[in-house]
Amino acid sequence: MNRFCKAIGVENPIIQGPMAWISTAPLVAAVSNAGGLGVLGVGFAPDDFVIQQVAETKKLTTKPFAINTVMIPENLDRLTGIIKSINPPVIYADTLGELKLELCEKYFEIWHSFGCKVIVKAGDMETAVTAEKGGADALIVKGWEGGGHTAYEATTVLVPQAADVLSVPVVASGGIADGRGMAAAIALGADAIEMGTVFMACSDAAVHPNVKQSIVDAKDMSTVITGTSTGEPCRQFKNKLSDKMETIEAENVRAKAAELLRPVAESSLKLAMIEGDMENGAVMAGQIAALIKEIRSAEEIISTVLSDAQITLKQIVNFSFSGKESTYE
Amino acid sequence: MNRFCKAIGVENPIIQGPMAWISTAPLVAAVSNAGGLGVLGVGFAPDDFVIQQVAETKKLTTKPFAINTVMIPENLDRLTGIIKSINPPVIYADTLGELKLELCEKYFEIWHSFGCKVIVKAGDMETAVTAEKGGADALIVKGWEGGGHTAYEATTVLVPQAADVLSVPVVASGGIADGRGMAAAIALGADAIEMGTVFMACSDAAVHPNVKQSIVDAKDMSTVITGTSTGEPCRQFKNKLSDKMETIEAENVRAKAAELLRPVAESSLKLAMIEGDMENGAVMAGQIAALIKEIRSAEEIISTVLSDAQITLKQIVNFSFSGKESTYE
Repeated sequence: MNRFCKAIGVENPIIQGPMAWISTAPLVAAVSNAGGLGVLGVGFAPDDFVIQQVAETKKLTTKPFAINTVMIPENLDRLTGIIKSINPPVIYADTLGELKLELCEKYFEIWHSFGCKVIVKAGDMETAVTAEKGGADALIVKGWEGGGHTAYEATTVLVPQAADVLSVPVVASGGIADGRGMAAAIALGADAIEMGTVFMACSDAAVHPNVKQSIVDAKDMSTVITGTSTGEPCRQFKNKLSDKMETIEAENVRAKAAELLRPVAESSLKLAMIEGDMENGAVMAGQIAALIKEIRSAEEIISTVLSDAQITLKQIVNFSFSGKESTYE
Repeated sequence: MNRFCKAIGVENPIIQGPMAWISTAPLVAAVSNAGGLGVLGVGFAPDDFVIQQVAETKKLTTKPFAINTVMIPENLDRLTGIIKSINPPVIYADTLGELKLELCEKYFEIWHSFGCKVIVKAGDMETAVTAEKGGADALIVKGWEGGGHTAYEATTVLVPQAADVLSVPVVASGGIADGRGMAAAIALGADAIEMGTVFMACSDAAVHPNVKQSIVDAKDMSTVITGTSTGEPCRQFKNKLSDKMETIEAENVRAKAAELLRPVAESSLKLAMIEGDMENGAVMAGQIAALIKEIRSAEEIISTVLSDAQITLKQIVNFSFSGKESTYE
C-alpha cells in the first residue's frame, strides 16, 4: 500500500494544492471524489467563509479533504476553534517564515486530538525537519518552479533531500502536471505528488474561464517572479501587472520597492481569478503551465496522471544506458 | 543503443558540464576515459590556453571530449580557425542572449565539415528549437537550479517540453548528481544527463581543495543567485562576496547596481577556484551540492550514477499507487 495514502487515508497519492479563489468546494470535492486529496484554499480567508466552504464540501463529498491554514502564531488559537467546530478530515499547514517547533507540537497535538491528519508544506529542509519533529503526518516539499508564493530550492533537489532525511511520507510539489512528472518525483524518492496549476485549468474549478484559457495558452518563459523585494516572492504570469511590479523593483532601492509594491499587489489575485482580468490581475501559476494543453475534469486529470505515470515507469525500466550495440536492440 | 551515445559517439549518456578553472584537461580526460563526455571549460579563455588544453587532453585520452564555446557572433570566426587547427571531437556551444538561426546554420555546417559533433546548451525552448533547426546533433536544456550562469526555467519543466518538441537527443542539466536524479531525468524524457557540481568535488579536478570541501559541506539554501540586475544571473555559494553583491543590489536602483557589480565580480571565480578563497571568491555551484557527500574520482562518480540509476528504475516500477490493500503487499 502507498505510504502517503495510508498515513492520510486517501485512495490516490495526489494532492490538489490550495489556491485562493480557485480551490473552493466544487474543485475540492471533485478531486476528493476522484480519490485524491482536495484542499480548500482558505489560508487567509475570513472565518465565516472557511465554515461555509467546509460545509459545502461535506455536502459534495464523503471522502477526505483538507483545509489550508497558515502557521502564523496569532492565527492559530482562532483557527483551532474553527477546526474544532467544523472538523475537517485533514489540516494542510502552510509555512511562512521560520517555523517554530513549540508551535507545531502544541497545535498538531490539538488538531490530532480532534481526529484531523496534519500535512505541512515546506520550501526548505529546516522547516521540513521541524514539522516532522512537531508531529506532522506527511511533508510536502515545494520547489521554486511552482506557482504563487514560492521558495528558493528546486523540486529536483528538495525531494531527494526530504526522502533521505524524513521518516514520514514525502510529497513532491512544483513542476508536476502529468504522468512523466509523477514518475520523476517517484524516482527522486517521493511517496506522492501535489499539483496546483493543472487544477486551475480544470472544468470543476469555479475560476474565471479566462484563467483556464491562459494556462492552456502558456509557454515556457510565461511566468515571472514578482515581489522579491518584499521577501515574499510570488510566481505569476507575465502581464501588465507584473511589468508594472518589475518596473517598480528596477527603479527603486529594495526597501522602497517593497513599500510601493504592496498596494499594487493588493486584490490583484481576486481581479484575475474572479473577474478574469488577465492583464491587471495576478495570475499565479507555475512554470508547468507550459505543458498543460487542455481543460479537463478533476477526475480525468487524476486518472490520466496515474495511468501515464505507471506507463512511464514501465517504459523507462528498459532505458538504454549504453552506446554499445546490444543484441537485443 | 542510447540515442545520445549514438549521436555523439560516447559510451555513456553522461556529460560533464564545462566549468572555467575546473574542467581542465585532467578532469575532462578522466571523464572521457570513464566513458562520459568531458568538456573543457574554455568558453572565455585565450586562444593559446584552448590550444594547450586540447593538446593536453589528447595526451591523456583517446576518447571523445568537447571544448566549450560561446555563440557570440564576434567570436566565431576566430574560434573556427582554432577548431580547424586543433580538431576537437565535439563542440559544446553555450548560448548567451538570443541565438540566431543564421549563425547556427553557418558555423555548425563548418564545424561538421571538420568532423566535429555539435551539442548546444539552451535555457529556454526558443533557443533549443533554433539550435536544432541550425543543425545541432543534441540539445542540453539546463534548469535554473544548476550552478554558474543560470536560466529561468526549472529542469522539471524544461526536459519534458524539450522531449516533446525536439527530434535530436535531449540532455537534462541542473539539479542532477546521483542515480535518482538520472532516473528522474529519464522519466521526464531525457536521453542523457549533464552534471557539473558533482565534478567540482572530484579527485580528478585540478581545483583548490577548499572548493571540493565546500561542495561536500553544502546544505540546501547554501546557494544564492547574484547579478540579477546585470541580466546575467549567476548561482554561487552564499559567502562574503555574495553578501556584498546582495547589498549592492538591495541599496541601488537596478541600472546602478549592475554598474557597481561588474568590478566586484571580476576575477572572483579564479580567486575561489585557484586560490581557494571561499569567502571573497565566487564559488559557482548548483543547488544539488546539498546531496554531494564525498570526494570521488570521475570514474567512480560515473559508474555509481549509472548503476544507481538502473537500480532506481528497477525499484520504482513496483511503486504502489494505491491506498487500497493489495494481496501482494
